[in-house]
Amino acid sequence: MWCHSCREEYEEVDAGTCKECYEEASETEEELKREIHDLKAKLSFLRLSSPVDLNLPVSSGDIYLRTADSCTPIPAHKAVLMSRSPVFKAMLESEMEESRSGSIKITDVSYAVLRAFVHFLYTAESLLDEQMACDLLVLAEKYQVKHLKTYCEKFMISKVNSETAVLSLAFAHRHNAKMLLETALGLILENMSTLTAREGYRELVDKEPRLVVEIYESYLSKVANTAREEQ
Amino acid sequence: MWCHSCREEYEEVDAGTCKECYEEASETEEELKREIHDLKAKLSFLRLSSPVDLNLPVSSGDIYLRTADSCTPIPAHKAVLMSRSPVFKAMLESEMEESRSGSIKITDVSYAVLRAFVHFLYTAESLLDEQMACDLLVLAEKYQVKHLKTYCEKFMISKVNSETAVLSLAFAHRHNAKMLLETALGLILENMSTLTAREGYRELVDKEPRLVVEIYESYLSKVANTAREEQ
Repeated sequence: MWCHSCREEYEEVDAGTCKECYEEASETEEELKREIHDLKAKLSFLRLSSPVDLNLPVSSGDIYLRTADSCTPIPAHKAVLMSRSPVFKAMLESEMEESRSGSIKITDVSYAVLRAFVHFLYTAESLLDEQMACDLLVLAEKYQVKHLKTYCEKFMISKVNSETAVLSLAFAHRHNAKMLLETALGLILENMSTLTAREGYRELVDKEPRLVVEIYESYLSKVANTAREEQ
Repeated sequence: MWCHSCREEYEEVDAGTCKECYEEASETEEELKREIHDLKAKLSFLRLSSPVDLNLPVSSGDIYLRTADSCTPIPAHKAVLMSRSPVFKAMLESEMEESRSGSIKITDVSYAVLRAFVHFLYTAESLLDEQMACDLLVLAEKYQVKHLKTYCEKFMISKVNSETAVLSLAFAHRHNAKMLLETALGLILENMSTLTAREGYRELVDKEPRLVVEIYESYLSKVANTAREEQ
């Protein structure tokens, strides 16, 4: 028989689908691609120009964000901040100092990180490296910007390995990043023999002994399961 | 043979694809679905709260849009208007009256249409009927909001039929809506015998005789092509 897709001959034992299902699947693929095309057009419409783009004047916003390490304010728009973060919304709707002064001071973060944060709030995009992903995740948690938190978490999951798993687990635990925690735990369980020698292990025992206990409990239960399956 | 997709038996003559291609296609489908999921999450993040939602106070914007038929202003944000429309951008960046007064008067449109227009600028969504689609397309053209124009045009294409094709053609021609024009012309060519009796035909002859000539020319060339193919 001839395959309608790759146009090569195949034997009965290598048969995949009937013609009807093949045609249906091709139609579905076309439909999904059309949907992606439409969604991308919608996205490019909804994306806002980022006020941290170099060519925009500082005066273009109606609120300013300031960090402790720089005297350059980052311009932004209340409407955008409020729409992206329930924390900014509560802050700016109330008569808190930030709302009256038109300036929000965020002291526990660097200028570069805050700039990337504001850029993401306008564009839903960011150029991450490992450090920036950590810093933005912390900010995203503080200001309850769920989409950014997921964005950073996915990036960190793509980077975690058995070397860094303990550090990642500790970070994920501290910032309630469940997907990253699961991934890091999985990697640790696969390499238990080296656990106690890993960077961050001793510190974790000191600061979060309960979490270390959870690792050992998970390991025990995994060993027990494997034993049961082998019987 | 058994189809891996519908799980039913089929004969050699109904064969579709080999197993390898079937598995590849399934993977592609999963990937496309994941991409759609991610794009939708991004969209829901970038969508702004519409200031025309009932629960927002009129005072929530930094610019107001006014129509001739209502004294209620529609609140909006300069940053959003400027990001969605190059016409608003030019207007608000310059020292034109609108920029100084914080108020934009749009006289050739009803309050309901302007409200829907503003809603779309924030959310990329609108509940259309045929009249609203026409009205919004005109506004989208005036303010160069391409995404809205395409949105309305697609809706109108889904509604046009042989009864309304002449009116749609005239509208599409007036507002430079090429996809709609092609669709309407196609429907007219399929029903040439009733063309002169259609609503809007006489008016089109009076106002846009050249466009009517184009219909007849297209028809002639179609007839000639068909004759050639039949030879």
